[in-house]
Amino acid sequence: MRKVDVLVVGGGASGLQAAITTKSTYPDKEVVMVRKEKQVLIPCGIPYIFGTLGESDKNILPDKNLTSVGVEIVIDEVTAINIKEHSCSTASGNTYQYEKLILALGSVPTLPPWLKGRELEHVYTIPKNKIYLDEMLGKLKDLKKIVVVGAGFIGVEVSDELKKKGYDVTLVELEETILNRAFDEEFGRIAEEHLLERGVKVVTGKGISEIKGKDGKVDHVVLTNGETIATDAVILSMGYSPNTAIAKEAGIELNEFNFIKTCEYMRVLPCTTDIVAVGDCAEKRDFITRKLDQTMLASTACAEARTAGMNLYHLSPCKPFTGTIAIYATAIGEHAFGTAGITEFKAKQENFSVVSGSFTGVDTHPGNLSHTHKQMVKLIVASDCGMILGGEVYGGYSTGELTNAIGFLIQNRVTTKALLTMQIGTHPLLTGSPAAYPLIKAAEVVFKKLR
Amino acid sequence: MRKVDVLVVGGGASGLQAAITTKSTYPDKEVVMVRKEKQVLIPCGIPYIFGTLGESDKNILPDKNLTSVGVEIVIDEVTAINIKEHSCSTASGNTYQYEKLILALGSVPTLPPWLKGRELEHVYTIPKNKIYLDEMLGKLKDLKKIVVVGAGFIGVEVSDELKKKGYDVTLVELEETILNRAFDEEFGRIAEEHLLERGVKVVTGKGISEIKGKDGKVDHVVLTNGETIATDAVILSMGYSPNTAIAKEAGIELNEFNFIKTCEYMRVLPCTTDIVAVGDCAEKRDFITRKLDQTMLASTACAEARTAGMNLYHLSPCKPFTGTIAIYATAIGEHAFGTAGITEFKAKQENFSVVSGSFTGVDTHPGNLSHTHKQMVKLIVASDCGMILGGEVYGGYSTGELTNAIGFLIQNRVTTKALLTMQIGTHPLLTGSPAAYPLIKAAEVVFKKLR
Repeated sequence: MRKVDVLVVGGGASGLQAAITTKSTYPDKEVVMVRKEKQVLIPCGIPYIFGTLGESDKNILPDKNLTSVGVEIVIDEVTAINIKEHSCSTASGNTYQYEKLILALGSVPTLPPWLKGRELEHVYTIPKNKIYLDEMLGKLKDLKKIVVVGAGFIGVEVSDELKKKGYDVTLVELEETILNRAFDEEFGRIAEEHLLERGVKVVTGKGISEIKGKDGKVDHVVLTNGETIATDAVILSMGYSPNTAIAKEAGIELNEFNFIKTCEYMRVLPCTTDIVAVGDCAEKRDFITRKLDQTMLASTACAEARTAGMNLYHLSPCKPFTGTIAIYATAIGEHAFGTAGITEFKAKQENFSVVSGSFTGVDTHPGNLSHTHKQMVKLIVASDCGMILGGEVYGGYSTGELTNAIGFLIQNRVTTKALLTMQIGTHPLLTGSPAAYPLIKAAEVVFKKLR
Repeated sequence: MRKVDVLVVGGGASGLQAAITTKSTYPDKEVVMVRKEKQVLIPCGIPYIFGTLGESDKNILPDKNLTSVGVEIVIDEVTAINIKEHSCSTASGNTYQYEKLILALGSVPTLPPWLKGRELEHVYTIPKNKIYLDEMLGKLKDLKKIVVVGAGFIGVEVSDELKKKGYDVTLVELEETILNRAFDEEFGRIAEEHLLERGVKVVTGKGISEIKGKDGKVDHVVLTNGETIATDAVILSMGYSPNTAIAKEAGIELNEFNFIKTCEYMRVLPCTTDIVAVGDCAEKRDFITRKLDQTMLASTACAEARTAGMNLYHLSPCKPFTGTIAIYATAIGEHAFGTAGITEFKAKQENFSVVSGSFTGVDTHPGNLSHTHKQMVKLIVASDCGMILGGEVYGGYSTGELTNAIGFLIQNRVTTKALLTMQIGTHPLLTGSPAAYPLIKAAEVVFKKLR
């Protein structure tokens, strides 16, 4: 039995950030992280080990981020939590008694139980697990054809990267457009065009119904309309589920999607002050819809972890977590896509009365420089109060940060009118022109419609 | 005598934006722009005609932005304003009677009256004037050595571009670091290093005291410490002055820096409802210090112009202009610099009690991709209330939009604590990592110091 002040269970992005924030905020407290993995992967970099990076060793979260601020790392697996005794026991037989417990249990890939053939050789998922992925990379080496199922970010990025390595790749998506949770149709179609240009085959509007094998190995997939695609391997990127089994066993309440119920300080509900949950395992409520949300993003996880760490011993009423806003970006070659907040489709589905405005310009000015990229911005705005609810961007290398700028507008509940009198900075090589800056022009389009 | 609803005087960025916003907001009104220039230059692109673009024809603001929404363009020069009669007369002998007048008179380069030798051949300034600049480009062709005086954005960009074209360039700056109005010392030093690497000679801490000639042409400059630099030409980039002579003659009040006094709806003070002023000619008050400000930026000008246009016939109390925040970005080769709000030096000079925090990371993750650039972010924060007052960025192509994101935080009066619980989006190819995103890490450094 070892006594520690703060025990962090899990070493992914949220565990790392929570440990660092806690140690920085409360330097006198001993912070110990227990995690299974010897080496932790950078989560958003995982798709890139299949192509650009070529190996997982180039995608490691450095432990010095933790050790340099004084967090102790223990490689072990927490197998049980005893809430009454304030303790956790591990696979190696140790017990840690904690003052405060941070659960950063992460998530595991969804493997649909109804999917026949999921047990065949060369059926893969994309877990955040270096050993699994290294083995998978090795096994894929001798294969040629790969079917990727599910065209969310992971599916799209993995498909593009595998194609880059020379594989024959088919991406299968049940919805009519790819990336449809994050982007409205018009952006999804552009993304699809870029994937096609780069040689990835894309099948939309059809799901997978079965994987058929031969000699225990993948042979072909059967789609929901009966069509078949011959393939050597199947990669399932059909979402992730919170890894909350040990929490449930300990009597911690889970919500209907199996996330650990938390309050806005990330404390575990209903009434503890000593256990917080952060990241993929922690309950999320959408910033805009206020509904339960299943978004799993390393960036959101880090924001939750900062909130939990800062409030661990002393609550500060100005530091709660006010709800999840999904901000993502992705890239297909040199073409980037970013989204923040809610799509127009989703907003209407949720009964928001919205107007949208789009503007397409360029990301430099004049627009004839060597690295100029088309830049398209769409804003989704509540028509009753003018508040910006969502934004989508298609552009070049500046797309990620422009999307973050829109994310800040949404999180600060900025209205279109306010945005129209706000100042931006522009530079020929770095942004659109001041008189045709797509974000502001899109706001002008919305403003006209609202009048 | 022609009667028009709205007369816009001046065709630069602010005139253009004001005309477009007015016509869009009040489509029934006839909007006529009178401007001198047949072709209007994109203001921020001007330095690039000396190198990257090679000629001014690649840097033209397209008139179709105006004509496509129904703004009429008249090439003529307004020479007098008659406020009582609501009219303007022009160089060609025409008179326009207006219902509303928008003054977008712009600015002209400062040519210090104390500077001996300023009348010599091959002494230039950088006006927003295509004819002047085309002639200058032609005359520079046969020369080799150029001294640029004043290391603000224009001076730095012009020096770098001329060097790119093969000139022997020396940049002279009176202050100890370059770009010192916009950046604290540490950023100025990095910018200076990059200029030096690229072959621009940089002289700091010394001003120019005289230009000496031979046969009526520039021969050398004398610095404030008596040193001399032999040169074929001198380019003075020592600031700009509002072009407000005709406003003054008409009895319109100017402030102590010769800007037209305006209210927060951009209406001309003290009491008119029919004349607004926008852009470089209009009074500015700093968003943070609340002092009169002399910032002249196309992006700020456009924000003022949108405010003026929207409020021209119907004031909306939620659409005033709340003060100028200087947001700029610039680039030296592939290295970019961005700034928003106030520098640490300036904040202290103004008696703000501030703390600053800096963090240096990379603008992709993992940080070993081909286009990865170091990314350094500094935040300047009020120590009493935690409000973010300024931010500075050094990085790659995403610097401009990251600076805009910081600009939005400042304009929304976001505090460090609020920023620390805010969500950002990250992507390996487009941004820093979620656990080491420099903007958030810089906020963490500030937060620690504030505790």
